[in-house]
Amino acid sequence: MEFSHIDREGASRMVDVGEKATVRRIARASGRVTMDPQTVRLLREKALPKGDALNTARIAGVMAAKRTSELIPLCHGLNVTFVDVDFEVDDTGVGITAEARISDRTGVEMEALTAVSVAALTLYDMCKAVDKGMTIEGVRLVEKRKEG
Amino acid sequence: MEFSHIDREGASRMVDVGEKATVRRIARASGRVTMDPQTVRLLREKALPKGDALNTARIAGVMAAKRTSELIPLCHGLNVTFVDVDFEVDDTGVGITAEARISDRTGVEMEALTAVSVAALTLYDMCKAVDKGMTIEGVRLVEKRKEG
Amino acid sequence: MEFSHIDREGASRMVDVGEKATVRRIARASGRVTMDPQTVRLLREKALPKGDALNTARIAGVMAAKRTSELIPLCHGLNVTFVDVDFEVDDTGVGITAEARISDRTGVEMEALTAVSVAALTLYDMCKAVDKGMTIEGVRLVEKRKEG
Amino acid sequence: MEFSHIDREGASRMVDVGEKATVRRIARASGRVTMDPQTVRLLREKALPKGDALNTARIAGVMAAKRTSELIPLCHGLNVTFVDVDFEVDDTGVGITAEARISDRTGVEMEALTAVSVAALTLYDMCKAVDKGMTIEGVRLVEKRKEG
Amino acid sequence: MEFSHIDREGASRMVDVGEKATVRRIARASGRVTMDPQTVRLLREKALPKGDALNTARIAGVMAAKRTSELIPLCHGLNVTFVDVDFEVDDTGVGITAEARISDRTGVEMEALTAVSVAALTLYDMCKAVDKGMTIEGVRLVEKRKEG
Amino acid sequence: MEFSHIDREGASRMVDVGEKATVRRIARASGRVTMDPQTVRLLREKALPKGDALNTARIAGVMAAKRTSELIPLCHGLNVTFVDVDFEVDDTGVGITAEARISDRTGVEMEALTAVSVAALTLYDMCKAVDKGMTIEGVRLVEKRKEG
Repeated sequence: MEFSHIDREGASRMVDVGEKATVRRIARASGRVTMDPQTVRLLREKALPKGDALNTARIAGVMAAKRTSELIPLCHGLNVTFVDVDFEVDDTGVGITAEARISDRTGVEMEALTAVSVAALTLYDMCKAVDKGMTIEGVRLVEKRKEG
Repeated sequence: MEFSHIDREGASRMVDVGEKATVRRIARASGRVTMDPQTVRLLREKALPKGDALNTARIAGVMAAKRTSELIPLCHGLNVTFVDVDFEVDDTGVGITAEARISDRTGVEMEALTAVSVAALTLYDMCKAVDKGMTIEGVRLVEKRKEG
Repeated sequence: MEFSHIDREGASRMVDVGEKATVRRIARASGRVTMDPQTVRLLREKALPKGDALNTARIAGVMAAKRTSELIPLCHGLNVTFVDVDFEVDDTGVGITAEARISDRTGVEMEALTAVSVAALTLYDMCKAVDKGMTIEGVRLVEKRKEG
Repeated sequence: MEFSHIDREGASRMVDVGEKATVRRIARASGRVTMDPQTVRLLREKALPKGDALNTARIAGVMAAKRTSELIPLCHGLNVTFVDVDFEVDDTGVGITAEARISDRTGVEMEALTAVSVAALTLYDMCKAVDKGMTIEGVRLVEKRKEG
Repeated sequence: MEFSHIDREGASRMVDVGEKATVRRIARASGRVTMDPQTVRLLREKALPKGDALNTARIAGVMAAKRTSELIPLCHGLNVTFVDVDFEVDDTGVGITAEARISDRTGVEMEALTAVSVAALTLYDMCKAVDKGMTIEGVRLVEKRKEG
Repeated sequence: MEFSHIDREGASRMVDVGEKATVRRIARASGRVTMDPQTVRLLREKALPKGDALNTARIAGVMAAKRTSELIPLCHGLNVTFVDVDFEVDDTGVGITAEARISDRTGVEMEALTAVSVAALTLYDMCKAVDKGMTIEGVRLVEKRKEG
């Protein structure tokens, strides 16, 4: 009988964080949705057909950060102690910053990046009736540190 | 007694798609994760610590597309008939394309964009042990059409 | 050998809606969170520690309505075509109304009631730092009808 | 170029619980579904079309408590060490009590209130074929304390 | 510049069901949890530490069937019109049968198999305090047909 | 007025793990999907219509393990520090092993068993176009221990 042990090289695998120290960890990420200036005007005046884009995107980003491990296959489930999403609007789009904090064995950069990405997707959804050319740019980690 | 009807102007609201036609709808989106050339080499050789980045990202993108309406507050729940995620690797990163199809009352661009974004976040997670400077760029809608 | 067919009397079971007609169905539900007048003042001025209670509760209600079948064991999964949550603030609390619409084989009253309940729980969460005596009252179906 | 920093006043934000002490925390909540006496009779005899309402509602309440942070936007994810839902049936309805316990940095009142609310919604769903006039009343926190 | 189109051979991909006919589809699956006769006695007497195993397992199976597409990566999201889980207890274990029905473009065998598997896992969880040797056996499709 | 306290005997209830020690806990489970030899050949050659079955099943198993408490009604929510799924292919099927680790108050056997079950269901889904007679067999706990 032919037998083949499946070679584990290349197979996806989670990292075991059981031996890592439980310390306070903080991560910040940022990104940007570029928009037509007319779209920015409607967003500022809360005159978009679907309503207040920034507040809806902020809540979506926070909620998505809490569910990061359901979206990213090899991410550990984490109970963040804090997530926040912030926006800066200029004439050609919206800058997004997110911060996540935790006291656990592994970092929260994926939570911060997920918050930015889902906030960006939500801005896109809120504005897409009036703007077909938006782009999500520059989603990246800005800072990652441990405390204490 | 003081009474205040909360002004609905600016309040987030879902669009009623009940009157729209059920037709076949297709959307394609794309994006890119920029990486260090050394990271790309490890990814190509399936030598990353977490294993095969592309296959894991493809599955994550498809699964996220099916749950788009849980992530984006005012998106309608949709049962897509097809989602696919594809990659193109060059020396400085990975290009991502996603396509979503449906026969329903509303478009699937948010499903395609969510597939790209979560595939990109997953690539980031698979590579972040060896590359601290990746960026997700140019997430946008490439095509949207109806058929039949 | 002893054999016992488990008596199905009393066992929970889903209703088969496969033979029901696909028509447009609408349901409206309402409820109320009673609050201390001082809490209402802070809510009106958006001065609560957790921020804008009404907008957050509206989004939470809409998102919960879309996931009703995950919460209520024997509810059918439904893709609503519209959900909306509205508020009316008076001196002693917040009235909540929700409407859900669908074109499917079964009614959407549970979606409307879930939207009201989760919006109420969210108002509670947003205000609980300043008010320990809130109560959720009168959650009920207001209207249910078919169209076309 | 015009620049506008979005004023954070009023924006929804999560509370950072990273500095709070990890202690044992307990919360109890209660509520009530009012029913027609004939509905109560069918419920007591487990003769409702959808089967055993109380057991189904108990399980739904426990499962919802575990997912509270997915429903309530600014709630922290928590791994409860215990949740229980209990019922008291009288001639005109069903009283519901829920208790949640945890050893963590923040309280579990939203988990207890969510358990009561979703158990109530499930009772409503189990009985709605025979009773169109039910109401969910008096959902409130009964007790909240720390131990040790 | 080196360029590599990632070969799609072997890559996971969803089947496009957009062209399939919307007909009534039914699937039935079965399986079995083998138990120590003493465990079966406690289960029959509803004397297990965690309470009524069968009812809890039935509800878990129905709820899991509704979320099949979240668990199985390439499964299509489907709104089943009916799911039911049934048990047959004998001296050495519990037989499980599940049926799922739908009117859609693709079959429901994965929904029926998921209902059986999660009902079996739940029986395991309900009994594991008193029985360390249970096994889940023979999970398979029993029937699959179209109607109309 | 007639009053009935619902007898709690038999009612499902969660175990309170608040007093248990936080120690490192490990569980391993296994199972098997029996297949036609021709199906195994296609799986080995990654020539199945839906693509690479093993990698997709591995990821599905890991992701399901993280969501065990959403599927099994009375399971505690746990943040596992590690989950892994492994396969062994022979001429008549695929053997599956899963391991889960945690530092918490309660064991992870349900997480390991859920990983095996959902990996098995995913293999079934990936192969069902070419094999109608597969069976999931022998899902059981192989090892459970505490460390430190």
